[in-house]
Amino acid sequence: MSGYFSEDASVDAVNGRMEPNIDPRLRSVMSCLVKHLHAFIKEARLTQEEWEIAINFLTETGQICSEQRQEFILLSDTLGVSMLVDAINNRRQPGATENTVLGPFHVHGAPRREMGDCITLDGKGESCLFEGLVIDLDGNPIEGACIDVWSDNADGFYDVQQPLIQPRWNNRGVFVTGPDGHYRFIGIKPVSYPIPDDGPVGKMLEQLGRHPYRPAHMHYIVTAAGYQKLVTHTFVGDDDYLGSDAVFGVKATLMAPYHRVSDGSTQWRSPFDFVLNPA
Amino acid sequence: MSGYFSEDASVDAVNGRMEPNIDPRLRSVMSCLVKHLHAFIKEARLTQEEWEIAINFLTETGQICSEQRQEFILLSDTLGVSMLVDAINNRRQPGATENTVLGPFHVHGAPRREMGDCITLDGKGESCLFEGLVIDLDGNPIEGACIDVWSDNADGFYDVQQPLIQPRWNNRGVFVTGPDGHYRFIGIKPVSYPIPDDGPVGKMLEQLGRHPYRPAHMHYIVTAAGYQKLVTHTFVGDDDYLGSDAVFGVKATLMAPYHRVSDGSTQWRSPFDFVLNPA
Repeated sequence: MSGYFSEDASVDAVNGRMEPNIDPRLRSVMSCLVKHLHAFIKEARLTQEEWEIAINFLTETGQICSEQRQEFILLSDTLGVSMLVDAINNRRQPGATENTVLGPFHVHGAPRREMGDCITLDGKGESCLFEGLVIDLDGNPIEGACIDVWSDNADGFYDVQQPLIQPRWNNRGVFVTGPDGHYRFIGIKPVSYPIPDDGPVGKMLEQLGRHPYRPAHMHYIVTAAGYQKLVTHTFVGDDDYLGSDAVFGVKATLMAPYHRVSDGSTQWRSPFDFVLNPA
Repeated sequence: MSGYFSEDASVDAVNGRMEPNIDPRLRSVMSCLVKHLHAFIKEARLTQEEWEIAINFLTETGQICSEQRQEFILLSDTLGVSMLVDAINNRRQPGATENTVLGPFHVHGAPRREMGDCITLDGKGESCLFEGLVIDLDGNPIEGACIDVWSDNADGFYDVQQPLIQPRWNNRGVFVTGPDGHYRFIGIKPVSYPIPDDGPVGKMLEQLGRHPYRPAHMHYIVTAAGYQKLVTHTFVGDDDYLGSDAVFGVKATLMAPYHRVSDGSTQWRSPFDFVLNPA
């Protein structure tokens, strides 16, 4: 029998109630959660009215979720939780390309393209050649690396957000490197866009004086046998929102240059090399 | 412009994003929340898979909420959060009756009854005379104190949980003290019952090796001009679940005796005095 609940012994009262023979990892995570949750409430001296606001906020956040909308991921993103979990689980050697958030718009099964192909199917936006190497920490090219790429269109929407407007797989494709480790494809120079801000998380951002925008970025998942999976973006280095990404995804090492091209092939060229960390 | 996000500076990256001119209390509570939330994730070294489990759990908890069901309050209750908020906001002088959780089954507007009236309308259960005094810290009777009382029925359900089965206002009533500060009414000896456990919180309790039961209790809200509002229960002192209340509501000072009665009036008599703290 645990002791009765008291303000001073609140953590022990709750954690002491778990049975000894439960999953040890669950016990550890839940004990840690209760400890920090109670510490928050005690330090903030949360009032009954504030607790009610929190209950209503969490309820509304859950209720707006659907197949097309994941408001709790937005909440996690905007509180830096998604990036923190990503950082903790993807510590790498210096020189390896850093991870950043996956985001909610990746789709499995994008079509395999040939090097040099264009992934932009709606004809909108400023065309850009993306190219570079997939290499290891010593600079050796990696053959057979799979590059899964996706971006918004020139209006700031991913194809899955506009299924009736954009062609399927617009600005998406999968490329596999040859022996030289080189990749090369044509897409558009991506544009900045707001995360969905018509729900509880949008209201929260507004009350905190924060805007909902993400700086323009290309999404990549790069995988190769023997190497850590790389989930990352490259950012357009002069975007207005680089210093205030609503989801905290920006890292200084992930800026990609965008050079103007004058030969008429594309309007821009953005070179970037991906350096994979050993698994 | 804030610094980019990093594992080490994650809290500053998020909290530095708030505008200076927002509501100061909101700023203070949110800063505190982010600090403790990130500390939890770092200490637990939450994995990506565990983060996904958490997102899904919170989403399901929100989705099961309805007019009749508040799963986030159940979550707060079962993690000791509700009791902690209650404790922080209701610190009292020694000798004053302690608060405990309100619970989700209070209904405003219960009928006013005369002292001695019976509040049990379905004829079920073991009848019990509840009586005692409403007094101040010096033992002086308080006239005009309003006692709002409610309990489950003999099957372990509140009237609002069974609107088609139980009479409206079954086991509920409001009583007002006269000059002697005395109260007196007939109800039933309450019984223990499980909190709703067919949702995400029930699954969580099961995985933690915890049962969903609450020990038998009578609910009271006692109010009087010039005194702190008292929201409390009295507990049946020999209940099997006293040491393991699923919502941590039990306090040693809230045990009420239940004496067998042999004069044929009621089966039990449970005396308890409420001592109000000055406002």
